[in-house]
Amino acid sequence: MLHFSDTLDFKNKDIDVFAIGELLIDMISTNYGDNFHSNNYTKNFGGSTANIAMNVKRLGGNSAIAACVGRDGLGDFLIQHLEDNHIDTSYINRVDYSTSMVLVTKSKTTPIPIFYRGADYNLEYNTNLDLALKNCKIVHFSCWPISQKNSRNTIEKVILEARKNNVLIGFDPNYHDMIWEHGHDGIEYIRNLVSKVDIIKPSEVDAERIFGPDTPENHVNKFIALGAKLVIMTLGKDGAIVSNGIETITFETLATEIIDTTGAGDAFWSGFYTGIIKGYALKDALNLGFAVSAFKLKYVGAVANLPTIEEIKNIYNI
Amino acid sequence: MLHFSDTLDFKNKDIDVFAIGELLIDMISTNYGDNFHSNNYTKNFGGSTANIAMNVKRLGGNSAIAACVGRDGLGDFLIQHLEDNHIDTSYINRVDYSTSMVLVTKSKTTPIPIFYRGADYNLEYNTNLDLALKNCKIVHFSCWPISQKNSRNTIEKVILEARKNNVLIGFDPNYHDMIWEHGHDGIEYIRNLVSKVDIIKPSEVDAERIFGPDTPENHVNKFIALGAKLVIMTLGKDGAIVSNGIETITFETLATEIIDTTGAGDAFWSGFYTGIIKGYALKDALNLGFAVSAFKLKYVGAVANLPTIEEIKNIYNI
Repeated sequence: MLHFSDTLDFKNKDIDVFAIGELLIDMISTNYGDNFHSNNYTKNFGGSTANIAMNVKRLGGNSAIAACVGRDGLGDFLIQHLEDNHIDTSYINRVDYSTSMVLVTKSKTTPIPIFYRGADYNLEYNTNLDLALKNCKIVHFSCWPISQKNSRNTIEKVILEARKNNVLIGFDPNYHDMIWEHGHDGIEYIRNLVSKVDIIKPSEVDAERIFGPDTPENHVNKFIALGAKLVIMTLGKDGAIVSNGIETITFETLATEIIDTTGAGDAFWSGFYTGIIKGYALKDALNLGFAVSAFKLKYVGAVANLPTIEEIKNIYNI
Repeated sequence: MLHFSDTLDFKNKDIDVFAIGELLIDMISTNYGDNFHSNNYTKNFGGSTANIAMNVKRLGGNSAIAACVGRDGLGDFLIQHLEDNHIDTSYINRVDYSTSMVLVTKSKTTPIPIFYRGADYNLEYNTNLDLALKNCKIVHFSCWPISQKNSRNTIEKVILEARKNNVLIGFDPNYHDMIWEHGHDGIEYIRNLVSKVDIIKPSEVDAERIFGPDTPENHVNKFIALGAKLVIMTLGKDGAIVSNGIETITFETLATEIIDTTGAGDAFWSGFYTGIIKGYALKDALNLGFAVSAFKLKYVGAVANLPTIEEIKNIYNI
């Protein structure tokens, strides 16, 4: 049971947050507009999991990323970018498939990306990954690696090993049928996964994809009924509802200005995890997560140039 | 037997050249440089087969293309571009996979592309394709569709049906291990395919990939030994050697200025096919092919704004 006043007790392990999954190229249109009418695109470092590793590092935590990229120039670029940001890249595999890419139209509405997956889902479980799971406090993954067979098998082993080693498991149920293996029931798979992780952070859109339309309160209860230990249901401008199955608390949004919503969820995870690691009570770590997310919303891009935790706390008076 | 003085006799069919295979996005770096250091990329219409369909149309032939694109904005863009150029798009399938893309670095040497294949190799054989094969003079394909299972099965049916209907079959053996299905022996497959097509146009690089290093003359003989009916071996600035198994003739290059080699091979095919269709003797059609290729070399881009055949003939005095 995760109580809101609890602080989590971690053994002395080297890696605070071990992010596993997507490290890829976001190829973003230069001009606004839907349906890829733009002729010009810009190459960017990307992947939700990679962004979390970057943010945690900027907030003063120690992060590492396990991911798979191609033996190509784009793979070189991603690894170099991580190294420039002092993130351990020793858990990155390189394979003879193209480095995965997402093509995105810069849009003021919700753009539909085009997914080009190659290397990413070939992530293998190996002894290096196994050692990291004995030496990390938190492991994080999203729907990206579990959406395809090879990396899904890897994540299943990660979960088993994390449980054995008392590693806290955070899961982002950001289901999207366009990335899921054709013929594999992703919704059913996610429902079965809920009880096997510790923390789950659905958005309203995620919850609707998994359970169909319902109220946020009912969606939270459905995750709890499936065995979720902590559900952080984000509601955009309406803040969030968080439940541990006994208590449910609501959070008002801390956002004062919204320039770009890209990466706001990853910013939350980053602040929240950093709070937990610093020994904050769960409720205070949640507040730090929402504050980091609010800060990120004021800037363009998936990874904002985050200040220190102390500055964030001063800005948002938490 | 294809004699150099022969003209080919086609029945009265509607489609002159039926190009089957790759219709895709070339995402080309804005700046010169290797290894994808460039941050900016431009979206272009692409695919060797698609370029041939475009060129034949510009030279006054009637072309159609069978290909598979995604139900996405890039697929819309490619189809619109073909329609704007008055090419029949009724043989294009759309599927729930991303429109295939090739990422290319603009380079003064030979750039190594990164391949993102999704929709293209899901091309299915259907009644529409079957009807087109009864109504076309020439069918053309490259290694692209035969490199992956689904479209390879389709091409195998295309070959059978083309044979039945006395359709001339042209094949570009542009083998590249980076596009080939992992675990499938592409070299062996191509060697077995040589006797099943009518015309094959290897470059020196293609021949070396298929047979290992040897002289151009020996490479030509190896294709003939495998059952090739007409081998057009292109040698860059050294022109070409063409053999029908009895006679071998050499062609000097007609190129006077080389600005960009991209699409030069496709330009050859286009001029050559157009010559055949217009009732030229085989040798004259070959000359027209080399002239169109020489013209294209003077311009940047895969598809040059080709003039009429008469203008080409005047420029190159053929």
